Amino acid sequence: MEKNNYHKLVAEFLGTMVLVLMGCGSAVISSTSGVIAGVGLLGISFAFGLSVVAMAYAIGHISGCHINPAISIGMVAAGRMRASECIGYVIVQILGAIAGAGILYLIASGRPDWNIATSVAGLGQNGYGPGSPRHYDLTSCFIAEFVFTAIFLLVIFGSTSSKNIHGGFAGLAIGLSLVLIHIVGIPITGVSVNPARSIGPAVFVGGQALEQVWLFVVAPIAGAIVAAIIWRYFVERTDNLSA
Amino acid sequence: MEKNNYHKLVAEFLGTMVLVLMGCGSAVISSTSGVIAGVGLLGISFAFGLSVVAMAYAIGHISGCHINPAISIGMVAAGRMRASECIGYVIVQILGAIAGAGILYLIASGRPDWNIATSVAGLGQNGYGPGSPRHYDLTSCFIAEFVFTAIFLLVIFGSTSSKNIHGGFAGLAIGLSLVLIHIVGIPITGVSVNPARSIGPAVFVGGQALEQVWLFVVAPIAGAIVAAIIWRYFVERTDNLSA
Amino acid sequence: MEKNNYHKLVAEFLGTMVLVLMGCGSAVISSTSGVIAGVGLLGISFAFGLSVVAMAYAIGHISGCHINPAISIGMVAAGRMRASECIGYVIVQILGAIAGAGILYLIASGRPDWNIATSVAGLGQNGYGPGSPRHYDLTSCFIAEFVFTAIFLLVIFGSTSSKNIHGGFAGLAIGLSLVLIHIVGIPITGVSVNPARSIGPAVFVGGQALEQVWLFVVAPIAGAIVAAIIWRYFVERTDNLSA
Amino acid sequence: MEKNNYHKLVAEFLGTMVLVLMGCGSAVISSTSGVIAGVGLLGISFAFGLSVVAMAYAIGHISGCHINPAISIGMVAAGRMRASECIGYVIVQILGAIAGAGILYLIASGRPDWNIATSVAGLGQNGYGPGSPRHYDLTSCFIAEFVFTAIFLLVIFGSTSSKNIHGGFAGLAIGLSLVLIHIVGIPITGVSVNPARSIGPAVFVGGQALEQVWLFVVAPIAGAIVAAIIWRYFVERTDNLSA
Repeated sequence: MEKNNYHKLVAEFLGTMVLVLMGCGSAVISSTSGVIAGVGLLGISFAFGLSVVAMAYAIGHISGCHINPAISIGMVAAGRMRASECIGYVIVQILGAIAGAGILYLIASGRPDWNIATSVAGLGQNGYGPGSPRHYDLTSCFIAEFVFTAIFLLVIFGSTSSKNIHGGFAGLAIGLSLVLIHIVGIPITGVSVNPARSIGPAVFVGGQALEQVWLFVVAPIAGAIVAAIIWRYFVERTDNLSA
Repeated sequence: MEKNNYHKLVAEFLGTMVLVLMGCGSAVISSTSGVIAGVGLLGISFAFGLSVVAMAYAIGHISGCHINPAISIGMVAAGRMRASECIGYVIVQILGAIAGAGILYLIASGRPDWNIATSVAGLGQNGYGPGSPRHYDLTSCFIAEFVFTAIFLLVIFGSTSSKNIHGGFAGLAIGLSLVLIHIVGIPITGVSVNPARSIGPAVFVGGQALEQVWLFVVAPIAGAIVAAIIWRYFVERTDNLSA
Repeated sequence: MEKNNYHKLVAEFLGTMVLVLMGCGSAVISSTSGVIAGVGLLGISFAFGLSVVAMAYAIGHISGCHINPAISIGMVAAGRMRASECIGYVIVQILGAIAGAGILYLIASGRPDWNIATSVAGLGQNGYGPGSPRHYDLTSCFIAEFVFTAIFLLVIFGSTSSKNIHGGFAGLAIGLSLVLIHIVGIPITGVSVNPARSIGPAVFVGGQALEQVWLFVVAPIAGAIVAAIIWRYFVERTDNLSA
Repeated sequence: MEKNNYHKLVAEFLGTMVLVLMGCGSAVISSTSGVIAGVGLLGISFAFGLSVVAMAYAIGHISGCHINPAISIGMVAAGRMRASECIGYVIVQILGAIAGAGILYLIASGRPDWNIATSVAGLGQNGYGPGSPRHYDLTSCFIAEFVFTAIFLLVIFGSTSSKNIHGGFAGLAIGLSLVLIHIVGIPITGVSVNPARSIGPAVFVGGQALEQVWLFVVAPIAGAIVAAIIWRYFVERTDNLSA
């Protein structure tokens, strides 16, 4: 049991590290380019979503591949995870996100004309108002993060439900729903829907990114809990731990 | 039974809300951008299609994930849904689409320099002639919506057929076929193939969008019914409710 | 039996019609655009490939979803289809392709400033030398069509082999391999790897497109036959009809 | 047994040939374009990744579809392949990569205004420092290749683990993780994570490409071995050959 938990925590650490390194990495390294067109908002969207697809099939059978505190907390709210186990998950997710942002910083610094302050995407941090890519106000940014996380969790609850006979597709459906959320939301907040993903870059960027990180903790967690309640009481009784 | 229907209607409401919020949202919020290239027509196409992929694996096992009155009516025409159940589906689909367009309006309004009249994509409404993105005439727009919906329904009938042993892939095939239809059709009408998806934004945009919405009710439904007839009599006898 | 064949031929007709209408349609209608970026070469690539994904799961269980004479002939060469059945398939595939190109012509003509002669992509026809998008010479174009079709057929033979336990993924793998082939090959010939797909638009465009169509009949069929031989004798003994 | 090995080696040769021809081909032939937008960094990323998806379902059941010496060596390190068999794999992978680069050279040369020295992407070779697309320094390039290959191998170990009940999705997850790695890494080194893929073009380009090829042999192999150790001891005991 102890050993299982240990494996799960390593998996969650690595998964969140990959999500932040590759997702934020696409924005920092490849979003714009020289002669050949950069990946743009669509490429960044695929980077975040495909990180989840890749990790879902790599570590899903080990830890469930949450790699997102909002998901772990949502799972507790839905009665599908013990609060005690959730705490360890959240801690390693945040540590993994910081590790991912650190590796990204290290790699990005190897480009002679790059520095974090003038980078087109900083280190991929999230923000609202003056920190929003297109200056969306606080209210819009909060609603967007709240609603997008709730949608994300609905896809997670439904696709991983024991009543869904196509469970093998969950990793694909969940990852592609994150592509979708990024396609729509990057101009608003850069898209978090994941407190760890926001904390990672903010630690290195500091300043405004760190001051605004509260929204990307509060709104996603609130969205996840509301989604758990909607799913459990209005769509489908979710599986209980005792079931 | 009653309870089941209730769950189905909530699922259809949420699914259609997500489709309109995210599909139209990509056009309104992310299609063009600043320094980093916007998602363009290809990104909008993925947004609509991936909304269906996400919802198919989230609520497909609950309601069948029609989230489109043309599909529900086509299912009735194919003998795979009762007309009485269809009415409830269509009502909540339209309500969900209006809710999705409303949330989008709310979020989009949080950008200081945005207003619905000057927005590059309005609120993602459909149109023909003067309302068509590239001014395709009424005839082209009607044919396009009719043919695209018929193709969409052929994919739905075939991939969800009880004779198809790869039923798990239906959600992916159907969603990716909607990506395909948008790749081709956005310059023509903005692509509807779904009366609810057109009604949602039209309610908020009003004017020409509302005057032209009839085409996006009539053509998709006609295409769906013709597809049901072709499928049932010329390709494969579809499963009957009594079967 | 007769009835089965009838259903198969309708399915192949519809499938090839969809491939040409949507694949060529993306090039003609959406490749370039106004304020919002057009789908570009990548979008055209997805349109052709996703047409195959969509049709594979729609009609694969009925006709095998060849929708390409080179595939049907390759299947005969691999001992997996009777020559007598192949003839009917090829005829309806060509008729379906012409129907698809016709519907596309009809829809495209509804744009006031469009005509087939000045269209950025004509009607999506293939060509070499002066007919090649980037003026690749005859030798390059022949090699490209030959090699790309052989690769395409290797994916088809392997993913649909009775020894492959993941047969459900064949439609996805085959369709995505067609995306891949288009990503690389559009600047060379516009990509055929399918005689019917080339004949369809050439009938309406006439002139050089029709004079050059022989290459897109000969090279893909040659590539398919060579792939069948390589697969059968050097990679895996393919399933025989008698098996 | 002998015969099986023979089939495996032909499969690995063909698979690596396709990966280099199509992956590098997208960069050389389609990355930039004329009136219609080229595929850009995102299209190149999909070309490399979809090559793996296509080959995984074509030859995965025959040879395991490594088509990459780093994967074969990583499999040995993880106790899932015999060193003796690995040698043959690596040799045909390198030969296949050279064949793929040769066919690409042949096809690309058919464009009147193309030559390898002035081509926007050469022949798709990898490089660091002066050979890096955006001039990332040696340290960054080494870390990137090391980390990306380790991530790639984690996805391979996890998705093909005998404890993972969704093994059918491995080809998709692995291929899409290669899309992801390219989205992030092309500006750094052009992305290798595969010694054969780097050797192929370098043989034809010569000069700096050949002088720098050592990094794309050393870093990916080191990353693969470290991933095998992490996976085996910290995430999941991998399957042993004797198991």
